[in-house]
Amino acid sequence: MEQLKRIPSHIGVIPDGNRRWAVRNGYKKQDGYAFGIEPGFQLYELMLEYGIREATFYGFTKDNNKRAAEQREAFTAACVEAVKRLSGRDANLLVVGNTESPAFPVELKAYANHRVGFGRGRINLNFLVNYDWKWDLNGLKENGRLKSAEIPRVDLLIRWGGRRRLSGFLPAQSVYADFYIIHDYWPDFQPSQFLDALRWYQDCDVTLGG
Amino acid sequence: MEQLKRIPSHIGVIPDGNRRWAVRNGYKKQDGYAFGIEPGFQLYELMLEYGIREATFYGFTKDNNKRAAEQREAFTAACVEAVKRLSGRDANLLVVGNTESPAFPVELKAYANHRVGFGRGRINLNFLVNYDWKWDLNGLKENGRLKSAEIPRVDLLIRWGGRRRLSGFLPAQSVYADFYIIHDYWPDFQPSQFLDALRWYQDCDVTLGG
Repeated sequence: MEQLKRIPSHIGVIPDGNRRWAVRNGYKKQDGYAFGIEPGFQLYELMLEYGIREATFYGFTKDNNKRAAEQREAFTAACVEAVKRLSGRDANLLVVGNTESPAFPVELKAYANHRVGFGRGRINLNFLVNYDWKWDLNGLKENGRLKSAEIPRVDLLIRWGGRRRLSGFLPAQSVYADFYIIHDYWPDFQPSQFLDALRWYQDCDVTLGG
Repeated sequence: MEQLKRIPSHIGVIPDGNRRWAVRNGYKKQDGYAFGIEPGFQLYELMLEYGIREATFYGFTKDNNKRAAEQREAFTAACVEAVKRLSGRDANLLVVGNTESPAFPVELKAYANHRVGFGRGRINLNFLVNYDWKWDLNGLKENGRLKSAEIPRVDLLIRWGGRRRLSGFLPAQSVYADFYIIHDYWPDFQPSQFLDALRWYQDCDVTLGG
């Protein structure tokens, strides 16, 4: 394991490119999501190894629900399966998303709005499921708090799949985040991609605007 | 002029690197800001040429006010000077920022919270002056509206100075923005940098998360 001086406390992960990966590899678009689960656990293991204390993974969003029914079913099933597998590991899980919409998977309601510990709870994992940035900010209107208020500032945001945008990922927490873009699609995850992001982060000058 | 098929409606501009440019060129840090005014007008002319209808420039933020007094004075003076020069051009100016703080320059109060037309008003120019993302979002708590509610969604965000982060730039409007990073410091602005950003934007796939 490489020694790094500066480790981000909270990493955001946008695991994009599942559908493009599927099409390129001769699958149907919706088949890509299932290939995105194992990479998530590889990344989880690396995060434990490098002492990352918190990570937020983009599951799916309200915007994503505009997609074809077979894709919606596939990404929802992948999120449920990921949590099922995570429950055998060592993480404290918080699911953040709009549970009042029918698009929110019932299987994950037990993890929404409060953190649930698995095993030795070695990392805080936040999972955005049926998340919607407008819904999140609307919490400010309703009771003066973000719906995602339990999730702290993001230090490093890593996006797979080459696009250079937030796509609505935690707008309030991402205001000072350093963005690292990986051109490969998420199912082609490699540990070196994550290590390159951590190495790049070593040299980012954190100023919080000051 | 190069023909481009896809022109962003609204461009965000983070003109970073003035202080680093100054130090590298043998000036004091605070001297960099004055060298950032002329590049702004070069970019303005290019925007008119390419039919950009709206742009938002990052002036300074509440976070920036933590800097040394001579820097604060210099970036405030540069913002005031930029508006003075713009008043002889063809733009509709809206200044957005916290006017209730002493850090807000009195000379710009006339342009805050309502748009003022100059000349033939060929572009909407928004200028973030003493802007603070928390203040902006607090509008949602106070009356259900962002303080920056007059500013629409950002399509393309161009940042000079190599850093890959928003630094608090319009969090709600930037959720779907494509980020283009230019490594050169802002006072080293070149038209080709802007054209490269526009060319890159041609191939960005706008999905709004769908």
